Amino acid sequence: MSAFRWVCESTEGRARAGFLHTAHGVVPTPTFMPVGTVGTVKAMTMDAVRSTGAGIVLGNTYHLMLRPGAEKVRALGGLHRFMDWKGPILTDSGGFQVMSLGALRKLDQDGVTFASHIDGSKHRLTPERSTDIQHALDATITMCFDECPALPAPVEAIEASMRLSMRWAARSREAFARREGYGQFGIVQGGTELGLRAESVRALTDIGFEGYAVGGLAVGEGQALMFATLDGTVPLMPEGAPRYLMGVGTPDDLLGAVERGIDMFDCVMPTRAGRTARAYTERGTLNLRNARHALDTRPLSPDCDCLACTRHDRAYLHHLFRANEMLGPMLLTWHNLAYYQRLMRGIRAAIVAGDLAGHAGRLRAGWASDDWTPDEMPYPDLPPVP
Amino acid sequence: MSAFRWVCESTEGRARAGFLHTAHGVVPTPTFMPVGTVGTVKAMTMDAVRSTGAGIVLGNTYHLMLRPGAEKVRALGGLHRFMDWKGPILTDSGGFQVMSLGALRKLDQDGVTFASHIDGSKHRLTPERSTDIQHALDATITMCFDECPALPAPVEAIEASMRLSMRWAARSREAFARREGYGQFGIVQGGTELGLRAESVRALTDIGFEGYAVGGLAVGEGQALMFATLDGTVPLMPEGAPRYLMGVGTPDDLLGAVERGIDMFDCVMPTRAGRTARAYTERGTLNLRNARHALDTRPLSPDCDCLACTRHDRAYLHHLFRANEMLGPMLLTWHNLAYYQRLMRGIRAAIVAGDLAGHAGRLRAGWASDDWTPDEMPYPDLPPVP
Repeated sequence: MSAFRWVCESTEGRARAGFLHTAHGVVPTPTFMPVGTVGTVKAMTMDAVRSTGAGIVLGNTYHLMLRPGAEKVRALGGLHRFMDWKGPILTDSGGFQVMSLGALRKLDQDGVTFASHIDGSKHRLTPERSTDIQHALDATITMCFDECPALPAPVEAIEASMRLSMRWAARSREAFARREGYGQFGIVQGGTELGLRAESVRALTDIGFEGYAVGGLAVGEGQALMFATLDGTVPLMPEGAPRYLMGVGTPDDLLGAVERGIDMFDCVMPTRAGRTARAYTERGTLNLRNARHALDTRPLSPDCDCLACTRHDRAYLHHLFRANEMLGPMLLTWHNLAYYQRLMRGIRAAIVAGDLAGHAGRLRAGWASDDWTPDEMPYPDLPPVP
Repeated sequence: MSAFRWVCESTEGRARAGFLHTAHGVVPTPTFMPVGTVGTVKAMTMDAVRSTGAGIVLGNTYHLMLRPGAEKVRALGGLHRFMDWKGPILTDSGGFQVMSLGALRKLDQDGVTFASHIDGSKHRLTPERSTDIQHALDATITMCFDECPALPAPVEAIEASMRLSMRWAARSREAFARREGYGQFGIVQGGTELGLRAESVRALTDIGFEGYAVGGLAVGEGQALMFATLDGTVPLMPEGAPRYLMGVGTPDDLLGAVERGIDMFDCVMPTRAGRTARAYTERGTLNLRNARHALDTRPLSPDCDCLACTRHDRAYLHHLFRANEMLGPMLLTWHNLAYYQRLMRGIRAAIVAGDLAGHAGRLRAGWASDDWTPDEMPYPDLPPVP
């Protein structure tokens, strides 16, 4: 077991390729973490998740504390054993989910009291309790318990919220049990106010964490403002530590954030889209419910090695969604996660090769272009049926 | 490609072990066919189906003619390519499903007119149309279009229905396109009336088919009457042809039917049970929603090599069903199909070894006994979580 650390392999501009060393293995970065909310990446077996090349997955403190409960997961051997994932696991702190409960939660300076969305039972999260839960889950990476307002919000509200999060960050750090190969990330807040973001970075680096996340973005501000915030924030963050942009995003968001120095991502988009018939490809997105796919014998993408693309055609996927068969979400989630991992591998390889600029241009041109032409992806010859 | 034929390897009493040779491969019998209603075995990838050892799967004419439509499946290369199953496929004729529509269907001597359960659209099935659809699907085994009443029913109704089915069987045979390695099965009807069953067997053998099914059972008559009907019917059926008991059943039903000379089965039980938290094991069934599984770190069964049993514990499966996660039905369907295939392999091996009687006794004792004891299946040591 080695120390928790991030090692830079190569840079191009502000973009970085590196390796994240943890107690549960080494993950090449930039990396995308599939979301395993409640101990499962929805509609996927862990073998399928592994087959996409994912190196680290995410779990949710809020969901797991309610069901099955943190102490149960501890008694069952921790989240790695429970969900059959031997690699590193990052758990969020529950802060973001609790804040999303709206009227169901009550915030004070010490923490948050809330009612479960499942059965209305009362629960409380504080920086100490959130950190303890993440220990019980045996998270490789523990996140600080924080608070963030939805944007847009008055500057005063963003400022007060950021400062509360920084006090909670110090308490989260105090509660964190240091172990070889495990780490804790602080979360930079401050909305789109660059001055507040800078103050937040200073507060967190004064405390000192194994990694730093950018929180409170992708909450309605739009891509341009998100990128501007990253432009003003990421360069202030420690160079030697991993940087994680929370809850982001589309393939285009990921590319732009890597160009701005981000190393880690998580998002429900590829999994949620997979359950709602939306496929990500090198040529943009496809809605498999659309009637134009009904007789299309081509794969989703000629460049994909997932089960959906190597064994089935668009017509079959269309049929599965029209018939409300579970295999539709299963195959399309698999495809989308495979696409996200392939995207990150390609971006990483381009950074190492010193060709991120060229690669990024080709990626964006692909997303903006039409579907593959018949020359690029011919319809296959079908075996005769009498 | 070889001729469609069933070859006997071994018998014990009336039970038979053999091989079914088809255009799409050889299947050891007795065999259980997973149900792929609408071009997918629910909650399973075809790789998962293959991993259980299944040799032949079933498709439904009624469901596939409505969605995506038989001509679409033909244009897409047939059902094998469509659902990624290279092995043999048996398709039912649609008769049973159409009869189940009740008020939505209207029967005449020529066929049945019915309204789709999906959108109410009008459709018609006749022996000729059902056979044509099964050709369009490229079924390895085509079933005769038949009609059967729910039991109990007046003898006159069962008799009239059987005779109509026999006239339809002759028309189905007339419409069947003979091809090397493909076969068509006639369906013995007659309820629990042994005289009518005998008449039905004679009518079908006079026509001549590649195989013979027993239909119209497991429709409410109970196991004892079902077995009595098999006792009076199966010995009359041709010895050199495969015998298929339609829509049956529990593990105990399968064992008893094999002992009475049946070679092939299909049933939604293992897949449907898997979606509703019910697991089949060598020690009877488990309901994974039951709270007693919440902290149980043992696998479902110590004898099972499925993904659920080799990677996960009962506590995790319980959690998945409580949290309504798709992975619960996915894993439990996999387990149940693996169990059914293992059951059939064990029964087949016992027939070949001349020990079916002993094996059957042990199977029945297992189903009747309590869960494995701690000595038989100890709780595993768990890795420490700080």
